[in-house]
Parts: sequence; structure tokens; C-alpha cells
Amino acid sequence: METRFTQADASHIPQIAALLRDDVLGIKVESQDISYYQNAFAEIIASPHDRLLVALQGDLVVACLQVTFIRHLVSRGAKRAQIEGVRTRKEFRRQGLGKQLITYAIELAKEQGCTIVQLTTNKVREDAALFYQNLGFAGNHVGYKLELGGS
Amino acid sequence: METRFTQADASHIPQIAALLRDDVLGIKVESQDISYYQNAFAEIIASPHDRLLVALQGDLVVACLQVTFIRHLVSRGAKRAQIEGVRTRKEFRRQGLGKQLITYAIELAKEQGCTIVQLTTNKVREDAALFYQNLGFAGNHVGYKLELGGS
Repeated sequence: METRFTQADASHIPQIAALLRDDVLGIKVESQDISYYQNAFAEIIASPHDRLLVALQGDLVVACLQVTFIRHLVSRGAKRAQIEGVRTRKEFRRQGLGKQLITYAIELAKEQGCTIVQLTTNKVREDAALFYQNLGFAGNHVGYKLELGGS
Repeated sequence: METRFTQADASHIPQIAALLRDDVLGIKVESQDISYYQNAFAEIIASPHDRLLVALQGDLVVACLQVTFIRHLVSRGAKRAQIEGVRTRKEFRRQGLGKQLITYAIELAKEQGCTIVQLTTNKVREDAALFYQNLGFAGNHVGYKLELGGS
């Protein structure tokens, strides 16, 4: 079946929330209450700096990611595209769909004038290194996280 | 002398640009043409999601960083604060100023409702691991970058 790469709309949120939960790390932190995701989506779609992208086969969301465009002062005021929450449905993996979705995000990043695309992956995601290296990414940074607690 | 932690204004940009250049990695990528930084600053200060913070002693910029607040879909629609471009003037290091500036950014992040603070550091910055671990950060991610070329 043909795969379509496009921006998500509100009708895709329940499927995307299910995708985020069906994950080795997501299972520990994601909720079955989709109102969290609906509220976040309303804010994301209202932002000119954010895109939520999906790969669709018919009405089925087979992969998703979020990309945020950020103007930084560093690197001569470079604009960067930051990718987060890359997920592919289990039964659709190893078909190149994730790679195609990232490539679509990179094209959007270029249109936005970004000169760097960046992302972090948890070290437990052992398959990620080869995946991103094959896309041309260099894993030359350490990603630090501080949990503030709260909601 | 007392140190003041506040948001940068346009008058600080030449000093901040000099700080970014006076760096083991910055020396390779940053420009002496401050118009790059003035243009980026105009965009950053117009964004409700971005803050450029400075530590000041009188009119002297002794440290700086940028923080961006990003609403994500992952982690139950968590809002994150992302820190970039943390720099302390060489002759003012090892006095805790960087730590105080990060702590100020964390307070702003809490006010914004963020539940995660995140950043990446290039692996060549050997001092960074201890610095961020002492602030409570966990270095459990790998940061990937893809250079798109362009300006």
C-alpha cells in the first residue's frame, strides 16, 4: 500500500498516543488518557515552530515524529530542526518507513532554512545508533536530562 | 562584585558573540561579524518560547545561555526546557557562576510548567559531565547531529 507523509491532524492523535505507549520506554511514562495528547497537540499545532508528522497508509498511522525549528545564537545564529518522538508501528518496521519520515522532516527543515538537524536517543535504544548513522547523523554529543517532577 | 542574573538585551550581544567565539569549538564556527548574532537575537527575543539569559557583573557579561521551552507530545505531552550555548568567561570560571545561571534557567522552566530540562554537550567537553551531574542531570542519551550545510 502507498505511504503518505504529511502533517498530523487531530483525528490521528488517538493512534499516535497508542504508538507512544507501545514502546519499551513509553510503556512506563505514557498515559491511556488521550486528553494529555490532545491538549499538547492543540499547543503544538498552534506553534509556527512545530510540526507533528505522520506516515499514513490509508487512515492508519504507521509512523510519527515531532520536529521543532529553533533559532539559536550559537553557530552564527543557526536555525536548527530538532526531532523528537520518532516511532514506527511494530508490524511496519524494517521497511524503511522511519527513514522516509525522517527524510521528509529533513526536507521541511531545509525549507525552513535550518542548517542542523538534531535529536537525542536514550542509550537503551540499541538499534538507534545504526539507524541515525545510516541517515548521516554523527553521535558526537551526550544528552543530559533533569526531571523536575510536577505533572 | 555582585552578580545579576537576567535576560539579555541587545547591548549585550557583542560581548555574548565574543564569549561564543572564545571557545574550543566556537573558534571554528563562530564569526567576528556580529550581525549574525544581532539578527538571531531579534528572532529569539520575539519568540515567547525563548529566553537568552546572562550573568552580569556591572555591565560585563560573565556567563550566558539560551533556553527554549518546547511542548512535546511524548511523556504525556510534557513541556521541556532546552538549554543551549552555556558559556562562562574564562577568567570567571570555577566560581559557580555557570551553576547559578543554570539554576536560574531551571527556575524559569518551572514557572513555565516544564517537567524536564535537557541539553546536549559535545563529547570533547570533558568537564561537562561532572558539571551537569553535580546539578542533578543524568547523561543517559546520545545526541545526534546532521549538518545540512547552507549558510
